[in-house]
Amino acid sequence: MFRIGVDLGGTKIAAALVDENDIIKDRLTAATLPERGNDAVSAEIASLAKRLCEKNGIKNTAEDVFLGIAAPGAINSDTGCIERAHNLMMESYPIVDKVRGYTGIKHIAIENDANAAALGEAVAGAAKGTACSVLITLGTGVGGGLVIDGKVFSGFNHTGGEFGHMVIQVNGRPCNCGRRGCWEAYSSATALVARTKEAMAADPGSEMHKVAQELGKVNGKVAFIASRRGDKSGTQVVDEYVTYLACGLVNVINLLQPEVLSLGGGISNEGDGLMIPLQKKIDEEVFIRGIGRSTDIRIAKLGNDAGLIGAAHLI
Amino acid sequence: MFRIGVDLGGTKIAAALVDENDIIKDRLTAATLPERGNDAVSAEIASLAKRLCEKNGIKNTAEDVFLGIAAPGAINSDTGCIERAHNLMMESYPIVDKVRGYTGIKHIAIENDANAAALGEAVAGAAKGTACSVLITLGTGVGGGLVIDGKVFSGFNHTGGEFGHMVIQVNGRPCNCGRRGCWEAYSSATALVARTKEAMAADPGSEMHKVAQELGKVNGKVAFIASRRGDKSGTQVVDEYVTYLACGLVNVINLLQPEVLSLGGGISNEGDGLMIPLQKKIDEEVFIRGIGRSTDIRIAKLGNDAGLIGAAHLI
Repeated sequence: MFRIGVDLGGTKIAAALVDENDIIKDRLTAATLPERGNDAVSAEIASLAKRLCEKNGIKNTAEDVFLGIAAPGAINSDTGCIERAHNLMMESYPIVDKVRGYTGIKHIAIENDANAAALGEAVAGAAKGTACSVLITLGTGVGGGLVIDGKVFSGFNHTGGEFGHMVIQVNGRPCNCGRRGCWEAYSSATALVARTKEAMAADPGSEMHKVAQELGKVNGKVAFIASRRGDKSGTQVVDEYVTYLACGLVNVINLLQPEVLSLGGGISNEGDGLMIPLQKKIDEEVFIRGIGRSTDIRIAKLGNDAGLIGAAHLI
Repeated sequence: MFRIGVDLGGTKIAAALVDENDIIKDRLTAATLPERGNDAVSAEIASLAKRLCEKNGIKNTAEDVFLGIAAPGAINSDTGCIERAHNLMMESYPIVDKVRGYTGIKHIAIENDANAAALGEAVAGAAKGTACSVLITLGTGVGGGLVIDGKVFSGFNHTGGEFGHMVIQVNGRPCNCGRRGCWEAYSSATALVARTKEAMAADPGSEMHKVAQELGKVNGKVAFIASRRGDKSGTQVVDEYVTYLACGLVNVINLLQPEVLSLGGGISNEGDGLMIPLQKKIDEEVFIRGIGRSTDIRIAKLGNDAGLIGAAHLI
């Protein structure tokens, strides 16, 4: 049995052969080019899978290959359809059947990419060996996925796991989803950058200006670096960011008590500068009912490969 | 096979024989009197179970009876221990082993009472026939439980499901748990009563004063009744209450997308006066990703029997 994971993004398709130790043995990529039509994208996935099989001497692809696809948007993993994915230009598209048609591979599954990444971390990453885990990704938005007993849990209609769209501040900052005060509006990289820019504008003497010049841009690192250099405004930005991030994480812990909660996305690369104050705030707030151990907070391990490895484990 | 559910509370122990149609066929109760010691409480549970079996002609109790216990506090359902329950005066107490010793019944399980109630609603109540459901109880606090595929999910350490301790307002109202802005501080019956009293104090002409006089007290119904009579301050209290309640419910839906989310506790008896504005706010805010159906919000069906019926289904 051979496992192939596919990460289908708006720009790029990656396909990887994952071995029995959950190591990526081989990988191929191609441009997505969604504008060429849905079936052409399916055919590209099929071509990558077939080339991976050929390169690696896999012969009985129909029976011996398990192919999993991680895709953005609204995925129905029961029917194998991408219900809606704007950046793939797909709507109610039966991608699993199509790729099956192009490859002859029998065992094909699909899952939302955030959920697949959570599964990847659960199978082979920061949450390996746990019965339940959550991955929270701090990127453009705040994404996430819940894995219970080796399976993604995303509700009866596969649209749960919208961790970023949990309001932590009624009538707070506006969110793209239409609500106000969503966790995402405070804890995404986008939110951190916006807050950093505001703080820079309010404090022309802040070290953040120098850091931004060194980095050539204002990104999620600026406030953290300035804070480490003793800058007051930078420290304020970091403190506020950590406070909101901890708030949402404690909410997730109080509700779900995953054995491990991993943090992914660029901001998780801050390491101790993020994790130490974050853990402190979490410890202060989490609801303990007298049973010893609570959720472990860890940095995710697999980076962009989490989705590929998770996809390979959908079956 | 005969199912017995036990609801162990600080004041009262109820035990019920639940038939194959999930109907309570017979029930017995006794005072808990925790001050007489943990073993005496276990012996009382055993006595209720044995009497139920005798009354109903159940003979081979050791093998044929499944006994489930719903108890407050921190429960470890793996070990069968009540780790901490203040009002039972129990700490790290192996209640399952004790009751087994007193009764000879082999199959005994225990679960937190809020989780057991969620299981009861899933098995035989408002969420019957669903693969995943959540029960939220609006009482002294805001409690809840998540049921997936007929089993309670409460995290790796059995302390999840603390829905009430999800912050929806950073730096908001203080909560008993030590955090500020917990959902419970806005959406419990206790919070509603406190807010009603504040609004009454601020508006001496409000109809709420008359309603409270008629009811002989200020309870969770006062603002709802006054609002139905056209009282402005009462309507404001209800609107605000519904806004916060909807906020937390939408959070739960966005994260978990249960097929059914049932509302229990006294406030759920308000019926349409609560449910119609609540549903409207939920519809406005819930995150939809293009797949048709979202969570159904329903009023819980089983009332205080939910825990008993759920307990009977722990095995």
